[in-house]
Amino acid sequence: MTLGTAGRPSETTLTAGALTTDLYELNMAASYLRRGLAEPATFSLFVRALPRDRGFLVAAGLEDCLSYLESFAFNDDDLRWLEAAGFDHDTIAKFAALRFTGDVFAIAEGRVIFANEPILEVTAPLPEAQLVETFLLNQIGYQSTLATKAARCRIAAGGIELVDFALRRTQGTEAAMAFARVSAIAGFSATSNVAAARRFGLRAAGTMAHSYVQSFSSERDAFSAFVEDIPGAVTFLVDTYDTPNGIDAAIGAIKDLKLTEGAAIRLDSGDLVATSQLARRKLDEAGLSWVRIFVSGGLDEYDLEHFRRSQAPIDAAGLGGRIGVAQDAPTLDTAYKLVQLGGRPVMKLSPGKDSLPGPKQVWRQNPIDRDLLATRDEPGPAGAEPLLQPVMRGGRRVGAASSIDAARQRLASDLDRLPETARRLREPIPPPVEVSPRLASLRDATRRTLEGTAP
Amino acid sequence: MTLGTAGRPSETTLTAGALTTDLYELNMAASYLRRGLAEPATFSLFVRALPRDRGFLVAAGLEDCLSYLESFAFNDDDLRWLEAAGFDHDTIAKFAALRFTGDVFAIAEGRVIFANEPILEVTAPLPEAQLVETFLLNQIGYQSTLATKAARCRIAAGGIELVDFALRRTQGTEAAMAFARVSAIAGFSATSNVAAARRFGLRAAGTMAHSYVQSFSSERDAFSAFVEDIPGAVTFLVDTYDTPNGIDAAIGAIKDLKLTEGAAIRLDSGDLVATSQLARRKLDEAGLSWVRIFVSGGLDEYDLEHFRRSQAPIDAAGLGGRIGVAQDAPTLDTAYKLVQLGGRPVMKLSPGKDSLPGPKQVWRQNPIDRDLLATRDEPGPAGAEPLLQPVMRGGRRVGAASSIDAARQRLASDLDRLPETARRLREPIPPPVEVSPRLASLRDATRRTLEGTAP
Repeated sequence: MTLGTAGRPSETTLTAGALTTDLYELNMAASYLRRGLAEPATFSLFVRALPRDRGFLVAAGLEDCLSYLESFAFNDDDLRWLEAAGFDHDTIAKFAALRFTGDVFAIAEGRVIFANEPILEVTAPLPEAQLVETFLLNQIGYQSTLATKAARCRIAAGGIELVDFALRRTQGTEAAMAFARVSAIAGFSATSNVAAARRFGLRAAGTMAHSYVQSFSSERDAFSAFVEDIPGAVTFLVDTYDTPNGIDAAIGAIKDLKLTEGAAIRLDSGDLVATSQLARRKLDEAGLSWVRIFVSGGLDEYDLEHFRRSQAPIDAAGLGGRIGVAQDAPTLDTAYKLVQLGGRPVMKLSPGKDSLPGPKQVWRQNPIDRDLLATRDEPGPAGAEPLLQPVMRGGRRVGAASSIDAARQRLASDLDRLPETARRLREPIPPPVEVSPRLASLRDATRRTLEGTAP
Repeated sequence: MTLGTAGRPSETTLTAGALTTDLYELNMAASYLRRGLAEPATFSLFVRALPRDRGFLVAAGLEDCLSYLESFAFNDDDLRWLEAAGFDHDTIAKFAALRFTGDVFAIAEGRVIFANEPILEVTAPLPEAQLVETFLLNQIGYQSTLATKAARCRIAAGGIELVDFALRRTQGTEAAMAFARVSAIAGFSATSNVAAARRFGLRAAGTMAHSYVQSFSSERDAFSAFVEDIPGAVTFLVDTYDTPNGIDAAIGAIKDLKLTEGAAIRLDSGDLVATSQLARRKLDEAGLSWVRIFVSGGLDEYDLEHFRRSQAPIDAAGLGGRIGVAQDAPTLDTAYKLVQLGGRPVMKLSPGKDSLPGPKQVWRQNPIDRDLLATRDEPGPAGAEPLLQPVMRGGRRVGAASSIDAARQRLASDLDRLPETARRLREPIPPPVEVSPRLASLRDATRRTLEGTAP
């Protein structure tokens, strides 16, 4: 059965509270609050370097971040625990009153991004901006790497339809919910994850397990029972015992039951190119050219590319573990760096980890053959588009939450404009991210000031 | 500040409901319910093959599975959504009444396990046993691979104390909670994750961020302010600008403030062996041999081994992204296979994915130089220990939830008894898992029956 989009409108995957943070954020915030260090601080969240074999990343996770910021507060349980843990009464009172009141500029979900481009910039009183660091890094980082993996699959798959089968192998159910959402942004057409289908209004899809086939005295009996019991499209799993026999059993069931639409067979093991060719031949010879072929079994973007290059007669694929954890890049080298404090630009000088000072803008041209990293307020190149947009002011969202459809369109449009050298799976070359002369001057001046060598 | 273990007792990380499953589980369960196929079914959950460079795995995730099974039920929202999505009234009524009433045998959390060993075996009426597949695979799979990664770090670290710093780079906050818990099982001594410290009664620990140092006019001012504001142990981050200067600033602060215990410096960039040697020399020359050296920055078990082999004067390390997602093995090749139905052993014959029939027992000897996979009821070798123990009967836990401390002790004991060839980081050799003659006979007989070649 394939379910429609009945159910609730798109929601976020939020499960975290104010204590879902690193202890040092609380310690630093306590110190700032005690000293009245509440100057406006700007932090910039970016990826330091692209993982190997990534020519681009896909921004994701923003909606969960905004939901978190809007509802940020310590509840009574949190405060009691913090007091028992040793924070003093004054600090507890200040924590109790604390909300996120800042502004956020961000790159919209679904946009293609590159190293060193701020995905999100927070400007807020220093304690607030500090406390939210851990959650923002977590969500933007993992959701962006999952979205990127899904986008690579969508690119590699060509005309093959893709379905999210990842729930059983993601790193927890929260990650599975996020993967269902970002894979929809990447252009997957359905998810096996029923909770995600409900929460995000996605199409739910599923086949049958080997255990179902094993629960009947023959494959043929299992197939007939499934058709009888499950309304709508049916996909027959044919590799429980012997695949050629299984294909024949499915053909027999489809003919006997006089099915005329919506049926598919699923191949989950062996050489999927060869087996899909065998299945296509058998189906066609039986006059069932309308029956689709669905494959699964630990597939990734390289398998999909192989199917396409081999012109394997595969119509759809279910993608699970390797994709749902972004197996070759399960984490990104993200940073959340203080770039301005009380109007004064600041930067870090640690070896290999220096940062660019001040609030920024990212300017995108068409085609996407170079981006420009600039100071927030300087004018951009003619015809270029500013990617960082205000999404929160004074702790409240600017406008409504962005939909999955809108994010999917943004991604499709960016990928269309991205050079093939950046899109390709192997040894891609990301477009350069250039630094504007004004930002370069600010960096040099800030470095001189910090090194005490300012003129 | 380092927080103690104030707060609530150990809890699980459960966030999933009955719809946190694949659609096909619901379709198959609906079909079974309609047909009255409620015979007792046994499913076996195991890992098909160890990932590369893994000589063992650490079982984890059981407690969350048991909590899920105990509370398994469709709520009114679930049922309304399923009805709107097309399930018929009879099925909805049966779903409404459905609870998990089965028995579970499992290997305890913290035990060392190998490929093909059932970590968990569920025996329940077929629809119940089928519906819970997806959640059980998700939790056992990802928690076990995270626990294994943490255990490898603990082995590699020798005398270096380890702290969980992973929250900002895990795949979601649920995974971060699980990682805090399994890293404690692996022997980490603290976590930066405050929510996890509260939930599981762990020690919370933290240092300071570069942004804190940047928020003051000098490192020295930042260090003094932190000592003044944050009671307890203080760790000075010394690499914001120039590490040798930072070390000197920390030494100055420690001496001026007359600290005599609990202080440490943290190195987060550059060549940590060389920098730790420089820091140790400077500290010792200043009479501060009691000040500890803490390192961080994308470290993994190979870095820890390098530190130990280099005899780097490193006392403690914070481990984040590479460990918190098990970067080189973020997912396991888990399976949940029907092995018995209504007393009849069954198995799958798919190429490369065949399974062993019937309920099983895993027998462990001392030292752990071979395990024996046997039928559930046959006697084990003299002196061997049966790993699969009853943990749930009739849908209720047998005994109380197991504690983190108990799991840590189990892991430490198994690792002590595991040969060095299996423990080592590179090209380890897992001990063989042998199949008892009785289980081999059952497999051969079942295969003949399924292939129609039984005599």
